[in-house]
Amino acid sequence: MSGPGWACRLAAENPTAPHPQTLNKGVLKMRVLIAPSGFKEGLSAPQAADCIEHGVLTAMPDAQITKIPMVDGGEGFTRGLVAITGGTLHHARVTGPVVDMVDAHFGFLGGSDRKTAVIEMAAAAGLRLVPKDRRDPRHTTSFGVGELISHALDAGAERIIVGCGDSGINDGGAGMAQALGVRLIDDCGQHLGPGGSELARLHHIDLSDRDPRLDGVRIDAAVNWKNVLLGRRGVARVFGPQKGATPAQVEELERSLETYAALIRRDVGPDIGREPGCGASGGLGAGLKALIGARLHPRYDIVMQYFDIERQLRKVDLVLTAEGRLDDQTPYGKVPVEVATRAKRHGVPVIVLAGSIGKGAYTNLNHGIDAYASIIKAPCSLDEAMVSGCKLLTHAAEHAVRMVGIGAGLSDQATALAATG
Amino acid sequence: MSGPGWACRLAAENPTAPHPQTLNKGVLKMRVLIAPSGFKEGLSAPQAADCIEHGVLTAMPDAQITKIPMVDGGEGFTRGLVAITGGTLHHARVTGPVVDMVDAHFGFLGGSDRKTAVIEMAAAAGLRLVPKDRRDPRHTTSFGVGELISHALDAGAERIIVGCGDSGINDGGAGMAQALGVRLIDDCGQHLGPGGSELARLHHIDLSDRDPRLDGVRIDAAVNWKNVLLGRRGVARVFGPQKGATPAQVEELERSLETYAALIRRDVGPDIGREPGCGASGGLGAGLKALIGARLHPRYDIVMQYFDIERQLRKVDLVLTAEGRLDDQTPYGKVPVEVATRAKRHGVPVIVLAGSIGKGAYTNLNHGIDAYASIIKAPCSLDEAMVSGCKLLTHAAEHAVRMVGIGAGLSDQATALAATG
Repeated sequence: MSGPGWACRLAAENPTAPHPQTLNKGVLKMRVLIAPSGFKEGLSAPQAADCIEHGVLTAMPDAQITKIPMVDGGEGFTRGLVAITGGTLHHARVTGPVVDMVDAHFGFLGGSDRKTAVIEMAAAAGLRLVPKDRRDPRHTTSFGVGELISHALDAGAERIIVGCGDSGINDGGAGMAQALGVRLIDDCGQHLGPGGSELARLHHIDLSDRDPRLDGVRIDAAVNWKNVLLGRRGVARVFGPQKGATPAQVEELERSLETYAALIRRDVGPDIGREPGCGASGGLGAGLKALIGARLHPRYDIVMQYFDIERQLRKVDLVLTAEGRLDDQTPYGKVPVEVATRAKRHGVPVIVLAGSIGKGAYTNLNHGIDAYASIIKAPCSLDEAMVSGCKLLTHAAEHAVRMVGIGAGLSDQATALAATG
Repeated sequence: MSGPGWACRLAAENPTAPHPQTLNKGVLKMRVLIAPSGFKEGLSAPQAADCIEHGVLTAMPDAQITKIPMVDGGEGFTRGLVAITGGTLHHARVTGPVVDMVDAHFGFLGGSDRKTAVIEMAAAAGLRLVPKDRRDPRHTTSFGVGELISHALDAGAERIIVGCGDSGINDGGAGMAQALGVRLIDDCGQHLGPGGSELARLHHIDLSDRDPRLDGVRIDAAVNWKNVLLGRRGVARVFGPQKGATPAQVEELERSLETYAALIRRDVGPDIGREPGCGASGGLGAGLKALIGARLHPRYDIVMQYFDIERQLRKVDLVLTAEGRLDDQTPYGKVPVEVATRAKRHGVPVIVLAGSIGKGAYTNLNHGIDAYASIIKAPCSLDEAMVSGCKLLTHAAEHAVRMVGIGAGLSDQATALAATG
């Protein structure tokens, strides 16, 4: 149940007077939760939240706003969480996905979570770090992700959050585990080299030299829950081609990851071949879970838990969310429906602002979304829209809230007339 | 003052029950006035009204809808008014703007106004009827407009509404007047030939042979009120170039129209050089007013009077209007602000749906408009948007009303909680 709405509180403050005639006065105190996704290659989630806030306050200067930017695990995850919580950002030089060293970063949250480190795998092994002419996912490595975890431990982390997404690797997290002391040995007793295709030669796994500090920290990874390691929907077949693999290379990778999963089952225990999330970020999810004891979480759960979205939803009148595109795929784990599903449990209406409204978007009306609008103001190219993304989103938020205010004003006016006449 | 709103009536029907929790139930009976413009080269105003109605009913199946399509005086004026009123359409072959005969039409309104004829000047003298290689406004004529008036009189018209707009002529309505028996004589005693440049040779005007039936009918013309006949903002200088005149030809036309105005003043009486609306449709407004006794009206007043928009506004909760483009020019006589200005007198909120939201659109918020949205759903070309105009407008209307419904639901919920707890 939602608590008494803003109109109620307005009435309580001035119980005998009719409601004001002007819309703006009538909607002064609406409580709005702003929980957008970022816009791919455009706005980060915190930027999107700021734009929406600006638009809402333009329409309703005294609205009470709570922002929960829905950062996913990919690029911007660390900076997003650091910015939102007032934490600190740290730089580190680590092994990149094509083995060349890269400048990466990790962070610590602010406030009472100052001992919680945040890492995004893309900072050390993202697709962006793989030059176009070297996009062979048989050879790229997640080694730098393990180095970032090690850096975070050096810096005193007691909890580590790992964001997965935008990866350029396909090694099942083997490199990450090796960087933390896990020994992946071939049948000559030698360490495997970097890259997923090396896993075909894996003979046994030895955890005896694993960094002992891992036993004393909690590691939570934000992953795409739908990604599995093996099979028809597995990471090699679904993401290999996106990362530059030919059909033959895809099959080679699939066989290597099968060997990896089989030896993890034999030497370590867990069966991670079809576990949800284990295929995230080129199988990094599998390595995190099986080899360094991380807990995997659907990618938005981390931020929603951190901000206690359930508690926030009990206190607001309206939710505004946003995503680059709204279509028939949105119900499958995208931000607007992740947020709307939770909002509906509390009876809070949800409006989505989208860069584009695509095919089958109406299906979202069956998933807790009450209305949606595109941010586009006129016929234009995608590039033009992206250049103006912030302005467009601000404008769309302003006018969505204006329309909500119109409805509230109508109802208030009617109520006032009923009360006085 | 607006009458009691829909929420009030809902409460009155079921005075003790709390308001329904679901938004749709709470907004079942909202009364909506739909008063859109047409979309240039896309939807006619009646089509736009139908699209919006469809969208509103998708969101609120039991909304009570009134449609006033804001047909302007241009192309589609006759068919629009005939369609809205259930009238009849008549075909007539008349002299076209380049003297070749053309197939034109006029109409009669339906219902109690069966004796009211509707003519659009563009059907007989529109720019569309002037081949591109013959666009010389010195020679095009409004003769066919006079013939259409004559046909309407033949068919028993007791009142005639003339729509002005989209004209291809610049003869000050001289041809129109000649077709109805007005004699425009040169200094050799000969009738002037067709076209505005002939007016330079005008020596005197003789109304003695004017069609006597004109004395027994009322003629109302819907014109762009800003258009004057002469001067810097006159019809030759503003519209001549659009109709194909060179700078020299523009000055020639200006001088011809000066002569025309001077002789109208001397031989007939009215001073029509700077009168509002007299420059409408290549000066047709001047001829209609001075030579056949028509009354000129700002172009949307006719349809707003016909549908008694003031009476409608007293009965509705919300107005939806639409226009191809909303920008800083909209306050200067465009449909959304024409409608919004009137709506504000009755305290009714107005939402605009626009093909594009252009520069300075926010200024419309100072002219009675409460919120606006573009109908565009994603980056696209103008052509793509125009092909899908009806779908886009329907969709935009649906979601605008959904947002209003959200606000109404919030307010209702708060009221119900206040009442019960």
